[in-house]
Amino acid sequence: MKTVLQKLIEGEISAEEAEKMLKTMQIAELEDFAKLDIARDVRTGVPEAIFSEGKEDLELIQIIQKSSNQGRVIVTRLEEERFLSIKEKIGHMTEKGYKIEYNSKARILVVKNHETEKEGRIGIITAGTSDIPVAEEARVMAEEAGCEAITSYDVGVAGIHRLFSQIRRMLEQNVKAIIVVAGMEGALPSVVAGVVDVPVIGVPTSVGYGVGAGGFAALNAMLQSCAPGIAVVNIDNGFGAAVFAATVVKQAYKGD
Amino acid sequence: MKTVLQKLIEGEISAEEAEKMLKTMQIAELEDFAKLDIARDVRTGVPEAIFSEGKEDLELIQIIQKSSNQGRVIVTRLEEERFLSIKEKIGHMTEKGYKIEYNSKARILVVKNHETEKEGRIGIITAGTSDIPVAEEARVMAEEAGCEAITSYDVGVAGIHRLFSQIRRMLEQNVKAIIVVAGMEGALPSVVAGVVDVPVIGVPTSVGYGVGAGGFAALNAMLQSCAPGIAVVNIDNGFGAAVFAATVVKQAYKGD
Amino acid sequence: MKTVLQKLIEGEISAEEAEKMLKTMQIAELEDFAKLDIARDVRTGVPEAIFSEGKEDLELIQIIQKSSNQGRVIVTRLEEERFLSIKEKIGHMTEKGYKIEYNSKARILVVKNHETEKEGRIGIITAGTSDIPVAEEARVMAEEAGCEAITSYDVGVAGIHRLFSQIRRMLEQNVKAIIVVAGMEGALPSVVAGVVDVPVIGVPTSVGYGVGAGGFAALNAMLQSCAPGIAVVNIDNGFGAAVFAATVVKQAYKGD
Amino acid sequence: MKTVLQKLIEGEISAEEAEKMLKTMQIAELEDFAKLDIARDVRTGVPEAIFSEGKEDLELIQIIQKSSNQGRVIVTRLEEERFLSIKEKIGHMTEKGYKIEYNSKARILVVKNHETEKEGRIGIITAGTSDIPVAEEARVMAEEAGCEAITSYDVGVAGIHRLFSQIRRMLEQNVKAIIVVAGMEGALPSVVAGVVDVPVIGVPTSVGYGVGAGGFAALNAMLQSCAPGIAVVNIDNGFGAAVFAATVVKQAYKGD
Amino acid sequence: MKTVLQKLIEGEISAEEAEKMLKTMQIAELEDFAKLDIARDVRTGVPEAIFSEGKEDLELIQIIQKSSNQGRVIVTRLEEERFLSIKEKIGHMTEKGYKIEYNSKARILVVKNHETEKEGRIGIITAGTSDIPVAEEARVMAEEAGCEAITSYDVGVAGIHRLFSQIRRMLEQNVKAIIVVAGMEGALPSVVAGVVDVPVIGVPTSVGYGVGAGGFAALNAMLQSCAPGIAVVNIDNGFGAAVFAATVVKQAYKGD
Amino acid sequence: MKTVLQKLIEGEISAEEAEKMLKTMQIAELEDFAKLDIARDVRTGVPEAIFSEGKEDLELIQIIQKSSNQGRVIVTRLEEERFLSIKEKIGHMTEKGYKIEYNSKARILVVKNHETEKEGRIGIITAGTSDIPVAEEARVMAEEAGCEAITSYDVGVAGIHRLFSQIRRMLEQNVKAIIVVAGMEGALPSVVAGVVDVPVIGVPTSVGYGVGAGGFAALNAMLQSCAPGIAVVNIDNGFGAAVFAATVVKQAYKGD
Amino acid sequence: MKTVLQKLIEGEISAEEAEKMLKTMQIAELEDFAKLDIARDVRTGVPEAIFSEGKEDLELIQIIQKSSNQGRVIVTRLEEERFLSIKEKIGHMTEKGYKIEYNSKARILVVKNHETEKEGRIGIITAGTSDIPVAEEARVMAEEAGCEAITSYDVGVAGIHRLFSQIRRMLEQNVKAIIVVAGMEGALPSVVAGVVDVPVIGVPTSVGYGVGAGGFAALNAMLQSCAPGIAVVNIDNGFGAAVFAATVVKQAYKGD
Amino acid sequence: MKTVLQKLIEGEISAEEAEKMLKTMQIAELEDFAKLDIARDVRTGVPEAIFSEGKEDLELIQIIQKSSNQGRVIVTRLEEERFLSIKEKIGHMTEKGYKIEYNSKARILVVKNHETEKEGRIGIITAGTSDIPVAEEARVMAEEAGCEAITSYDVGVAGIHRLFSQIRRMLEQNVKAIIVVAGMEGALPSVVAGVVDVPVIGVPTSVGYGVGAGGFAALNAMLQSCAPGIAVVNIDNGFGAAVFAATVVKQAYKGD
Repeated sequence: MKTVLQKLIEGEISAEEAEKMLKTMQIAELEDFAKLDIARDVRTGVPEAIFSEGKEDLELIQIIQKSSNQGRVIVTRLEEERFLSIKEKIGHMTEKGYKIEYNSKARILVVKNHETEKEGRIGIITAGTSDIPVAEEARVMAEEAGCEAITSYDVGVAGIHRLFSQIRRMLEQNVKAIIVVAGMEGALPSVVAGVVDVPVIGVPTSVGYGVGAGGFAALNAMLQSCAPGIAVVNIDNGFGAAVFAATVVKQAYKGD
Repeated sequence: MKTVLQKLIEGEISAEEAEKMLKTMQIAELEDFAKLDIARDVRTGVPEAIFSEGKEDLELIQIIQKSSNQGRVIVTRLEEERFLSIKEKIGHMTEKGYKIEYNSKARILVVKNHETEKEGRIGIITAGTSDIPVAEEARVMAEEAGCEAITSYDVGVAGIHRLFSQIRRMLEQNVKAIIVVAGMEGALPSVVAGVVDVPVIGVPTSVGYGVGAGGFAALNAMLQSCAPGIAVVNIDNGFGAAVFAATVVKQAYKGD
Repeated sequence: MKTVLQKLIEGEISAEEAEKMLKTMQIAELEDFAKLDIARDVRTGVPEAIFSEGKEDLELIQIIQKSSNQGRVIVTRLEEERFLSIKEKIGHMTEKGYKIEYNSKARILVVKNHETEKEGRIGIITAGTSDIPVAEEARVMAEEAGCEAITSYDVGVAGIHRLFSQIRRMLEQNVKAIIVVAGMEGALPSVVAGVVDVPVIGVPTSVGYGVGAGGFAALNAMLQSCAPGIAVVNIDNGFGAAVFAATVVKQAYKGD
Repeated sequence: MKTVLQKLIEGEISAEEAEKMLKTMQIAELEDFAKLDIARDVRTGVPEAIFSEGKEDLELIQIIQKSSNQGRVIVTRLEEERFLSIKEKIGHMTEKGYKIEYNSKARILVVKNHETEKEGRIGIITAGTSDIPVAEEARVMAEEAGCEAITSYDVGVAGIHRLFSQIRRMLEQNVKAIIVVAGMEGALPSVVAGVVDVPVIGVPTSVGYGVGAGGFAALNAMLQSCAPGIAVVNIDNGFGAAVFAATVVKQAYKGD
Repeated sequence: MKTVLQKLIEGEISAEEAEKMLKTMQIAELEDFAKLDIARDVRTGVPEAIFSEGKEDLELIQIIQKSSNQGRVIVTRLEEERFLSIKEKIGHMTEKGYKIEYNSKARILVVKNHETEKEGRIGIITAGTSDIPVAEEARVMAEEAGCEAITSYDVGVAGIHRLFSQIRRMLEQNVKAIIVVAGMEGALPSVVAGVVDVPVIGVPTSVGYGVGAGGFAALNAMLQSCAPGIAVVNIDNGFGAAVFAATVVKQAYKGD
Repeated sequence: MKTVLQKLIEGEISAEEAEKMLKTMQIAELEDFAKLDIARDVRTGVPEAIFSEGKEDLELIQIIQKSSNQGRVIVTRLEEERFLSIKEKIGHMTEKGYKIEYNSKARILVVKNHETEKEGRIGIITAGTSDIPVAEEARVMAEEAGCEAITSYDVGVAGIHRLFSQIRRMLEQNVKAIIVVAGMEGALPSVVAGVVDVPVIGVPTSVGYGVGAGGFAALNAMLQSCAPGIAVVNIDNGFGAAVFAATVVKQAYKGD
Repeated sequence: MKTVLQKLIEGEISAEEAEKMLKTMQIAELEDFAKLDIARDVRTGVPEAIFSEGKEDLELIQIIQKSSNQGRVIVTRLEEERFLSIKEKIGHMTEKGYKIEYNSKARILVVKNHETEKEGRIGIITAGTSDIPVAEEARVMAEEAGCEAITSYDVGVAGIHRLFSQIRRMLEQNVKAIIVVAGMEGALPSVVAGVVDVPVIGVPTSVGYGVGAGGFAALNAMLQSCAPGIAVVNIDNGFGAAVFAATVVKQAYKGD
Repeated sequence: MKTVLQKLIEGEISAEEAEKMLKTMQIAELEDFAKLDIARDVRTGVPEAIFSEGKEDLELIQIIQKSSNQGRVIVTRLEEERFLSIKEKIGHMTEKGYKIEYNSKARILVVKNHETEKEGRIGIITAGTSDIPVAEEARVMAEEAGCEAITSYDVGVAGIHRLFSQIRRMLEQNVKAIIVVAGMEGALPSVVAGVVDVPVIGVPTSVGYGVGAGGFAALNAMLQSCAPGIAVVNIDNGFGAAVFAATVVKQAYKGD
């Protein structure tokens, strides 16, 4: 600051120039703080994802049209019927170069005008076939977040051999994180974490009945796993697991 | 009944004899019903087991002395200090041919004047070392109930190879049931049930903390197991698992 | 291995023969491990059972057609409407010698081209009429698993005399396990276990309301039973109880 | 009121007398409302009972000395050591005709200068020996509330015959309510309610471990009982069960 | 027995007569036991009540037709549509002198050919209007069980004065028990029990949302009430409360 | 800013003075944001309160000595033994004008060198005597936060008249909030909120046993109260209730 | 009273007059008690609000027509379809000067013949868009209760800067309480309470899934907040939060 | 294999040599499978960590002496008194070049004969001072696992500014994961994840009381966080968080 004032005194700069320079410095200081927030957008590499439950169709359409300015918008937990009804209203966006992709298993809608470049791989495993929708939500999100996803569905604890060959395939392809989706007793992440050297992200699913209803048995089993190297996200939260995994992967491509 | 009365009329038997015979017949009829209850003692082959928690030392000593008339009495959940204090009061029973056996891991006291003959084998597996006290409770009870117990402790899901070699050893020795004791995420019974053709009895243990505190995560995981062929007993209930396993074993030695 | 190599050197066998022999030995060693997995199929004597909830009709039809190669396929929790719609697509299988049996109480579909031979008996008891669907699921599964099932439905704790005569009938027929299905307060397994010398498998049902909603009161009562000789499966899990009971029965027919 | 004023005018009574009479009338009207509150004391026939937990010894001693003016004071949940220390401070009350009775099983202290007359009987049954302290709390309270108590402890579901003979004994003595105290799976009240024609009051106890810890399994089983004619009080609440039972008994001795 | 045998010997009676007499004695002894069970029917004064949930229409119709031989049959939790459909099938019973009464609030169907005589009164209070269906279930059941019911609906804690005048009205009519039906925070039974000298039976209702969803907040509040003289039944269990209350009332009309 | 720069150019101020002035302005701008944070201290009018549980004595002593620079420091949940041991180490602070006040019921230690001026009143009511420690914590905190506290302890739902006279006393003194502390069934706040026109702050206490253990029954009852005008704080959180109440009171003394 | 009697004696007043005067005095005394109840109506400044769930349309219509005599009636949780059907029946009320206002987001119907004057302001903040319905319920109620509401919806923890600017706006407008509505992890009230000096009323919402289902995670987070100055109402209880906030605001406008 | 056999035939190698070569090949194949297991040791870079709770001192000493052959052994949850008693028995190990390091906050004992090289950094943040022991457990473990740990303790949500400057410091030092340890309402991880682009690992702590007791409120808040990029470990599981974080860090240093 002294330099600026000195220059002002010495007539090198005008009062207006000095004021502007000082203001710029001050803003820089404030922006320094705001930078943290910018980092946030950088983080996942994906524009905001919209959780469609509890929002009306009209609200969703407005959000999609507004958010797509950012080049891409993702809507999660969108049932097919809702998609079909929304599609009619946003169909015209294809004329502007947008692609409208809907995955009915994952219940995810992606509207975008460019592809994300892929960097790094993650693995996604499910214990049963009923866990696939959650896994697909994770797969689509991971891909939109710039990761390549290697999937292996329905390889429960039962057929241990089959499971191991799938895990080996993933390790050979250098996955940097494995998302393990499991309902029922949620034992699969423990078994996987017992044999790999990459972070295992457990996603309990609400598949099950009786004591397993809602996915709490699986959640608790994963949290309580005797194999270290596991962290857990909310029940059925394929979205969160993918964003977390993508964040892990990105660490490997940042400088040190 | 007619026969008896006829004999009475014909003077073959006296009124007293007739009354006694009739009463016996009547009792037999009542006993027919009671027989069900007798079956109960036959069932486990062990005299009543006393759950020591919530009973005072004096009560226990009285029960031991009274019950031992049946040749054997078993006291469970007896801490070592309590045993030592009780021992002083019942030590004299050794003079009458009783053996006083205390297992401090299992926290079981057995006072008996004869050995039970063994018939049939069961396996007992624990996931960790902290599960051993519950497993030992099961082992002592199974042996008192007339089963040979083959144990394999601390073979968690982590070292799958080691686990399988232990299971194979048990199957080769023809165990008729396997008790699997596990806390934490309780995944072990599922893995075992996935590879054996004998009933698996899961015993969740209260080992663990956080969401695993109290053993409920393990209990729910076992109940919710995706591998069939598992049934479960209460948390830390090594006693119940052993009695149940012994009952299973006995089915194989009863005629058809 | 030495023998093989020796024979090779001595010209008794060719290099090709030696290689084949050595490979066979090696495979045998690997198979030794895999044997555990084969044991699994042997275990229940039934081909895979498909849990239909969470699977679409199309998926089910494909699984049925594929799995039936094994001679039999079982689909559980299949509502009647779903069965009727699926039936149209698989009806042609009857031409190939398959029988299509659907039990609407049990909600089980069995497609098979042969009958299972029965060996050994189990008993199935329900406390109330609302528990019958779960009991029927158990009955059908037990029969498919090769057990004869003796059923006695709606004999609650209320009419103790009636209950006892039913139990006696089962014991006289040498059942090797009794499945007791009960909702509400779940007291029936305790009462049954108090008078029999065979394993009692408790199946809590989700019948009930208020504190009994979901079957947790019954589940906890069974786990906490003061009568030993009870093990428990998940709420409404008639399937699991039957598979477990069948496994118990089979122990009696294996050599020692 | 008119009458009073008339008398005043006519000089039959003085202004002071009139005021006093009117005030009495007014109070009577207020008391009419308060009568409801007085009814409360009448209800149980016992003076306030003090729950000692969470109160300091000094507080208890003050309450005892103050409350005893009512002729009797009852302190519940008072551990023996506390009683012994308190006893020293209130021992002198015996000189004034007070009796100091302490029941260590029930953990109740009664200080009184007269006996309550007994009218009507209730039965008290426990499933196990560990339930006895709660039952004794109920017995002492019932007696202080003016009921005769017929007890039968440790008659679980196991020995059905023994249970029935005890119940018959109670019915023959015309008990007007039966308190059934049970922990574990809490099945006893259901069985009792199935065979009697008097109200059954279930008292779950915190005896048990695992899923039975705290008494919730027993509580829920009792609330969910399939036998009607049962109502339930809080876990371990022998006191409340006794007061409720006494209130039931009193209905039979009030006019219609 | 001696007398009979003596008479036989002395020729006073024939062997046939003796046998018959002895058998009668024996049966008497057995019946002595069975009497307990008969007592059960006597207890509530009502024939079996059928819980309609989980039963199909056809099952209900069969049960109604069979049970009505006893003069009366009660079906609970029967939605109006179900009643209308069932009514068509049982309408012809009116020709045989049966009355078909359906209360849509209480969701109870009563089919009977005679009226129950009333003896004794109970009070029924609800906190809000949403609690009325449960209260009506209790009212209909209480009347069928032979009690006169005095009801006072929608008198919450808010308007204390109004509540007290209702309670006074009930006490003046000598009710022998008061059923208090309340959801939300369940405070009403505590307040009522604080001012009356008759047993208070709390019925929590599942009215409420958030922490009150399902009625558990109300249930726990009632169990935990600081006012003694309350016992509780299951959530929404108007039926159980009425049967319990009727049992209480009957104690007053039995001899001592 | 222009003004400053102009003055600098015109030589009215030196570069150093200009820099200082500009920096002050910049800080002011930043402080504008920080003002929110300062508001925080203003809010309760009390310096930070230290929750002593989970902190070691040494840590507490250091915090007390450091924080007291602010003129006052408050330590909550401090058991008497701990206070006595800490007192020795901080006793010398009295020489510097600090007062060391410890309330053993409230378990609060206040070290301060000045008194807080009181402005506005709140009421504090407890249902039972066991609730008093929590109420005392609230009272001490409220006073330190500058409120006058009117207390009325042990006025449960039982003695409605007594309760109402206490409430009237508080309303007459213009309390601006009433803290109602209650364990057990937690009904008191509902009753109070039903008759007052000031905010009622419910504080559930962990007093109770069985279903009331831990205070959850009381918490839920308060949250679910059918009387509007109640808000609730955490179980046993007298501290939080007092700070909240003080914040309410202060609204009345701020300008509009 | 003496004065009256004296006058009567002295003939200044007649007996009738005296009686009337005395009765008036007596009533005044009773009314003194009732005054508390009147205070209740004064409290919120709003007529009774009707919770529509669990009430039939017909009931609602009757209540609306009856309650509207008080000038205004409010119906909460009224779905749009129900409103439309009810509207037809009450439409004629507009002829009598009533306004019928329905807010479909808030699901509140207000029927009134005058506007409430506003005095004092509150702030209402939501974390997400799904929390808006609960916030709108609070807004409508607050306005009917005479408060001006400043709302700021969808300002989650994510965009901290945006949140702070909204809070500052509210503080500048002198809000006397801030209602913070949040589901999911419920962190927002803590953050808000950390920077304001007015009472924060947390309203957890049932938005969320998995462990967040039902709103319990948010409720517990708010109760457990480490920032003092927060009190909480039931899940989704926008109504209760508004009434509480209005009560807080009113304190500032009452004299001292 | 053919090559080996050919060489054998051609006399280039002896039968012994051939056998050895073939065995080696076979083992290689088996090891191919086992490699997965070896990967496990590689994964965390730390030898087995021993959870000391539930193990006796003697057991621990034996494990320490045996495991230390691997160069390092870690014992977690070891209270200071236990350490002091164990230290006497293992003190002699220092003579063999072992260092015995005990961290009383972290309650971790490390016995090792070499230092781990550090590669990569992680951040560790705690909300309060009571969370520090869990954070220290994480720090020690992370360092033993070869990570540099940057800690910042006691930066709760309250002082947002202070928190942000700490986060910035960590980001500037290129941490590849941040462990956030928080009890109470568990809001901190959400706030941190909102401003960083590295994986956030939430560790709920059991700090808290009332609804926060046991750490479940914090756990659920973290799982339910509205900020993506968070995964969670068990309550108080600093160990698991560190191992997970170390696994994340290692991904960045493995080739692609």
